[in-house]
Amino acid sequence: MCIYKLDLGLTFWFRGASSAVNMGDFKHLVIAKFKEGVMVEEVLKGMEKLVSDIDAVKSFEWGQDIESQEMLRQGFTHAFLMTFNKKEDFTAFVSHPNHVEFSATFSAAIEKIVLLDFPAVLAKAPK
Amino acid sequence: MCIYKLDLGLTFWFRGASSAVNMGDFKHLVIAKFKEGVMVEEVLKGMEKLVSDIDAVKSFEWGQDIESQEMLRQGFTHAFLMTFNKKEDFTAFVSHPNHVEFSATFSAAIEKIVLLDFPAVLAKAPK
Repeated sequence: MCIYKLDLGLTFWFRGASSAVNMGDFKHLVIAKFKEGVMVEEVLKGMEKLVSDIDAVKSFEWGQDIESQEMLRQGFTHAFLMTFNKKEDFTAFVSHPNHVEFSATFSAAIEKIVLLDFPAVLAKAPK
Repeated sequence: MCIYKLDLGLTFWFRGASSAVNMGDFKHLVIAKFKEGVMVEEVLKGMEKLVSDIDAVKSFEWGQDIESQEMLRQGFTHAFLMTFNKKEDFTAFVSHPNHVEFSATFSAAIEKIVLLDFPAVLAKAPK
């Protein structure tokens, strides 16, 4: 418990020290490994359409690992990062009918996944 | 092989469609679960100092999951995302003596980790 309390304190410290650039940004991070035979590009198109259609999503970046050693990436191949202005926008996105529908498709396509949802701390801002 | 070729094609398509905002940005993503008893805030301070000291790191964001269900985050608690202007900057960062030194400390503090390194595709840019 103590560790978490301290860590939370540091989070606030970082937030205080960081610029206003991303104050309040909330991130939805997904890393995934697709099942064999899945047409990944179709899934990506669907995801692109999803985030384009929902205003609550501020920005969306993704990538396919090209560099990490297999041991370190542990079979995961893709990362998807959505940014929201605030946590409420993320909540709205999650419960949006289009997201609910897409999630079913996405779940069927992946072999494994990790999700992390967090308020972003910008410890070093781009110059 | 076919899937990857198609996927690569889509990547380029996305790149062509995206703005110049992050053209060429390279991302280093780490998700981690710390060992019990680790003073997480000390590790975070070390990481903050590391990226501040190395110019090759364009920006650095991190966060602690507060939202995802345990089943979905699979024990991972923290995400760290470093952005570089180009892959060569990432390579320089990885081989930097400070990074080599910090990696040893970091490795000792974590119970599990996934790394993904990838050229970022900005599919939806912030307005």
